[in-house]
Amino acid sequence: MSPRSERTPLLADADADRTRSSEDSTRRAEEEDAALHGVAAPPATASRLREVVLFAWALLATAAVVVLAVVLQHRSSTSPAPLPGDPAAGEPYLYRHPASSGHKKHGKKHKRNLVFMVSDGMGPTSLSLTRSFRQFTQSLPIDDVLTLDRHFWGTSRTRSTNSLVTDSAAGATAFSCGRKSYNGAISMLPGARPCGTVLEAAKRAGFATGLVVTTDITDATPACFAAHVGYRLQQDEIAMQEIGEGPLGRSVDLMLGGGRCHFLPNGTDGSCRADDVDVTQIAQDKHGWAYKDDRAGFDELQMGRNVSLPLLGLFAHSDVPFEIDRRNMADVYPSLSEMAATALAALEDATRDSDHGFFLMIEGSRIDHAGHINDPAAQVREVLEYDKTFKLVVDFLEHSDVEGVLVATSDHETGGLATAYQGPNELPVYNWHPSVLARANASTEYCSHLLQTHLSSLPSPPTSPAARRSLAEWITRELVVGRLGITDARDEEIAALVDVPDYALTLLAKMVSVRARVGWSTHGHSAVDVNIYSSGGKAAEVIRGNVENTQVGEFLSGYLGVDVDAITRELEGKGGGDGCGC
Amino acid sequence: MSPRSERTPLLADADADRTRSSEDSTRRAEEEDAALHGVAAPPATASRLREVVLFAWALLATAAVVVLAVVLQHRSSTSPAPLPGDPAAGEPYLYRHPASSGHKKHGKKHKRNLVFMVSDGMGPTSLSLTRSFRQFTQSLPIDDVLTLDRHFWGTSRTRSTNSLVTDSAAGATAFSCGRKSYNGAISMLPGARPCGTVLEAAKRAGFATGLVVTTDITDATPACFAAHVGYRLQQDEIAMQEIGEGPLGRSVDLMLGGGRCHFLPNGTDGSCRADDVDVTQIAQDKHGWAYKDDRAGFDELQMGRNVSLPLLGLFAHSDVPFEIDRRNMADVYPSLSEMAATALAALEDATRDSDHGFFLMIEGSRIDHAGHINDPAAQVREVLEYDKTFKLVVDFLEHSDVEGVLVATSDHETGGLATAYQGPNELPVYNWHPSVLARANASTEYCSHLLQTHLSSLPSPPTSPAARRSLAEWITRELVVGRLGITDARDEEIAALVDVPDYALTLLAKMVSVRARVGWSTHGHSAVDVNIYSSGGKAAEVIRGNVENTQVGEFLSGYLGVDVDAITRELEGKGGGDGCGC
Repeated sequence: MSPRSERTPLLADADADRTRSSEDSTRRAEEEDAALHGVAAPPATASRLREVVLFAWALLATAAVVVLAVVLQHRSSTSPAPLPGDPAAGEPYLYRHPASSGHKKHGKKHKRNLVFMVSDGMGPTSLSLTRSFRQFTQSLPIDDVLTLDRHFWGTSRTRSTNSLVTDSAAGATAFSCGRKSYNGAISMLPGARPCGTVLEAAKRAGFATGLVVTTDITDATPACFAAHVGYRLQQDEIAMQEIGEGPLGRSVDLMLGGGRCHFLPNGTDGSCRADDVDVTQIAQDKHGWAYKDDRAGFDELQMGRNVSLPLLGLFAHSDVPFEIDRRNMADVYPSLSEMAATALAALEDATRDSDHGFFLMIEGSRIDHAGHINDPAAQVREVLEYDKTFKLVVDFLEHSDVEGVLVATSDHETGGLATAYQGPNELPVYNWHPSVLARANASTEYCSHLLQTHLSSLPSPPTSPAARRSLAEWITRELVVGRLGITDARDEEIAALVDVPDYALTLLAKMVSVRARVGWSTHGHSAVDVNIYSSGGKAAEVIRGNVENTQVGEFLSGYLGVDVDAITRELEGKGGGDGCGC
Repeated sequence: MSPRSERTPLLADADADRTRSSEDSTRRAEEEDAALHGVAAPPATASRLREVVLFAWALLATAAVVVLAVVLQHRSSTSPAPLPGDPAAGEPYLYRHPASSGHKKHGKKHKRNLVFMVSDGMGPTSLSLTRSFRQFTQSLPIDDVLTLDRHFWGTSRTRSTNSLVTDSAAGATAFSCGRKSYNGAISMLPGARPCGTVLEAAKRAGFATGLVVTTDITDATPACFAAHVGYRLQQDEIAMQEIGEGPLGRSVDLMLGGGRCHFLPNGTDGSCRADDVDVTQIAQDKHGWAYKDDRAGFDELQMGRNVSLPLLGLFAHSDVPFEIDRRNMADVYPSLSEMAATALAALEDATRDSDHGFFLMIEGSRIDHAGHINDPAAQVREVLEYDKTFKLVVDFLEHSDVEGVLVATSDHETGGLATAYQGPNELPVYNWHPSVLARANASTEYCSHLLQTHLSSLPSPPTSPAARRSLAEWITRELVVGRLGITDARDEEIAALVDVPDYALTLLAKMVSVRARVGWSTHGHSAVDVNIYSSGGKAAEVIRGNVENTQVGEFLSGYLGVDVDAITRELEGKGGGDGCGC
C-alpha cells in the first residue's frame, strides 16, 4: 500500500466508470465523517464511530474487490483466444488515425515498425498446394499447417481500374498509394497523376525504409513504393528514381534483391539499360549508398549487424533463382529469408535511438513467376520460403521492444491454379499428388536453361534422326528423370521437347502438373480474391474480413500515421506525371 | 435502487456486475447494523488496535480495488472491435461448451437458434465471379459487394481421410459429426462405425430441426445430418432413415427440397426406388409427417405461417431446376430463399414456447452442379440466390428475440474454377467478361434438355446432310443464340453439337466459358480451402481464421451444447454399421 493512495483522490480518471463503487464508498465515508464531526459525542462513542466508519470502508472496498475480480474473471473466460504467435496477445496495441496515442511497447511515443509482405501471384490454391506438399514431404499430420495459415486474417479484392484482372503494378499501387489505378501503373493514377506512397510518406515522417525482393528491385511491386512512372517497363527510369533521382530525392534506405542489370551502364558486362548511365555510381557518389553486388558482399553485412545505410544490395543480374534451384547455389545467392533477416536487423539498428521505427516491404516475388510458367514444383518451394520469412518477421516483431505489425497479402493470383486436373477423355479424378512435386529437384526454368546450354554445346543443330535420338535421350536422362523425377514420360512428350526446345519451360511444367493432377487455366493472372495474413492485434482489425486492396494500402499509411496525400501534392507541385519520367 | 436489488443475495447473478455498488451499500448497512448491536464497548487500547487493523484492511482492499480497476480499464480499451453488421456488436453473446450461461436475448436460459448454410462446391473464385457479375448487370460500383462478402469469417481446409480432394459426403460428415471420414461416407467413420450428428443430438436435446436443399433431400449433404450409411448412393435407405426408420427413430422435423423419386415405390410414376416401398406413406402413417409434393402444397404453407411439423416437402422429382431456369418456372418450383424463409418461420413458431430453439441446415446444393457441368452462367445465379438466402437468415437472426448464429461454408470447391482462360495458341488475357454470362438466359442443362426433346420430336435421326443442316440451324437459333446469347459460334462448335448431342451439356458450357474467359480444370472437385461466413459474434470466434472443416462441425454441436458422442454410443449400441443399412 503506497502513501500515494492515501493522498490521491481515488480513481480521479473519468474513464474508470466501472470503479464507481469504490469512489462512491470513499465519498460516502467522507460524508459520514463530516456528519460525525458535526455532532458532539463522548470519547468512547467517537472511537466506536471511527471503528464503524473504518469497518464500513473496509467492507466496501472488499466488496468492490470481489465484484471487480468476478468481472475480470468473467472477461478472461470469454475474451477471444489470441492467435498462436500473435505478438499482440500479451500486449495489444491500438490503431488510431492519423496519429496514435495507443499502447506502446517502447517508451518512445508513436514509435512503430511496419512490415508489409507481398506474395506476388499467390492465390488461395497455392496455400492448400503448399500445405499438403509440406505435410507429405515431412510426414506431418493434417493439422500441421503453415505459419501463414495460423495468421489467416481475411481476403482482398484485387481488380484494377481498367480490368477485373489486375497486374502487379496496379496491385502494388493499391498498396503503396491506397488508390486504384490501371494495369501497368507505377504509383500513377489515370491521367498521368502521380500518387504519394506510404514509403515516401514514412521517410518524410522520419521512419527508416526498406525494400526486399527476389526479382528485379525495379520490378512493379518494389517500384510502386519508391517511383512514379506511367508504365512498369520503364525500369531504367525506375532505377534512377529508387536511388534518389526522382522529384522527391531519396526515400529508400535499404534495397536488397535482384535486377543489377538495370543499374549498370549499357555496354558494360551484365547491363540491360538502354542508356550508358552507371546508376550504381550515381547512387554511391551522389546519394551515399553503400553498394554490394554479390554473395561475398552480402556476407559482409553479417545478417544486418554490419550495415551502413543507405544500402543497395543487388545480388542477381535479374531474378534470384527459384528457391528449388537457389538452395544448391547458396554460395552465389542469398535467400529471401536471409535478406529479410538482414533488413530487419539493419533497420532496427538504424532506428534504435529514433522516435520513429521503420517501414519494410518484403516480396516473395517469384511465386508469381512459378505461376506464369505453371510450374507447381517450383511454386511450393517459393511459398515455403515465403512462409519461413513470414515466421521470421512474426518472431522479430514478437521479440522487439518496439510496437509493430506485419500485414501480408498478394497482389493477385497467377495461373488460375487448381488442385485438380482432368485430362482430355478422362473422367474426373478426386485427388492430386504432392509426391510428384516432391520428386522434382529443379524448376523447369533451370531445366530449360540446362537444355539451352546443352544445345549450344552441340557441334550442329540436332536435325538428323541420330542427333534427335541422342537429344531425346539426353533430355530424358538429364532433365525429365534426373531433374523432374518423371520416369513415365511418353514418347510424344519427349518428341515435343526435341521439336521445340524453346518451349521446354512450359512443356516440362505441364509434364509435372499433369502427373501431379494440378491444373492451370492461364499463363497470366486471374481475378480470385487473395488472402491476407497478419501478426494480428487491434490495429489490423480494420482490414479483417473481405476488403478492397486499397483498404490494405490505407491501413499501411494509417498505421504509421503518415500523410500520403501531402506527398501527392508535392509530386503534383513538382510537375506531376511529366516530372516523373512518364 | 430497485426493490429487487435489496432482496437479492450479493453476487447471486454474475452478469449483473454493473449494479454492484448500490447492492453493496445495502448489504453493508445491514452488516454495520449487526456489528453495532452485537458487541459491547471495548477498552480504549483494544479499540485503538481494532481501528488500526480495520484501517489496514480498508487500505489493503482499496489498493486491490485500484489495481483491479486499472486492469479492467486496460482490457476494455484493448478488446477487439465488433465487425460492421455484426448483430452481436451491441449485444455480444458468449460461447461455452457444453452448456452456456452467457448473455440471453430471450428470457429462456440456453435458448439458441443455429442456422448452418452449405454452399456445395462454392470455392473462392465463385465469389469474385458472382460479385463482378452482379456489379456488371446492376451497374454497381466496385465496392458494392455481396452480403456474403460483408460476413467473411475465414477459410476451411477440406481434405478427407482418404484423399486430398473430398467429396460432399466426407465434407458433410465433417460438419455433422465433427469427424474426418472417407469420400462417400454418410456420417460413417472408417470401419463402418456410425457417428452421431449435430442434428440428431439437437433433436434429442429438445431442439427443433430442419433441412432445406435444392437437390434430392437424400443427397450427401442433407443425408449426413439424419442418416448413417456406408456409401452415399444408398439413397433408398437414406430416405427411410430420414423419415424416422433408422435406429434413432425420427430426428428431423422439417425437410424441404427435391428428390421425391426416392420416396415413391418402384413401378409408380416418378419413382427411382429399387423397391416398392412408399416412403411418403410410411412417413405420414407411421411418423406423422405432413406431406407436400408440389407448388400448390408449398403455397399452402403460407411461407411458414401454416405449417404442422413434422413436414416433408418434396417439390421436384430430383433437383430443383437451376435458379437461372427456375425463375421462369416459379409456378412449379419454390426457390431456395422461399423454402428457407418458410423453414425459419415454421421452426421459430414451433419453438416459440420451448426452452430450446432450432437447428436448421440450408444448402445451396446446385452451385456444385453448375461447377460439375462447368457452366458459369448458371453458377452465378445459384450463388446470387444463395447470397439472398444468407441475407434473409442474417435478417431473421437479427430480428429474432432468441439468441442465434449463422455459420455458412462450403464442403469443397468444384470445377477448379478460375476467372481467367487462355486458349490454345493464345497469349494470356488479363480480363474476363461478365457480359457473356449476363447474355445467357438459361443453363446449359436446360438447353441440353431442350435439345433432347427436339431430337426425340424428329421423325428420324438427323443423319442426312439436309437433316444435319436443319439441326445445326435449330441448335444455333434456339439454343446458342436464343438461350446463351452467343452470336459468334464457330462452325466446328455447332458441328460438335450435331455430332454428339449427348455432350451438349458440357459443349455448350464450354462455349460460354471460353467467351467469358472463365477457366475450369476438371468436372470434379478440387482441394482449395473454402470460405467461411458468419453472422458473427463471440461464439463464432473459435472458427475464425483458417480451420479444419471438422472444427466447423465441432462448433455446431458446441454452440448448441449438445452431445454427439452420446448419439454415437447409442448408434453403436444399436448395431453400429450393420444396423444402419450399410
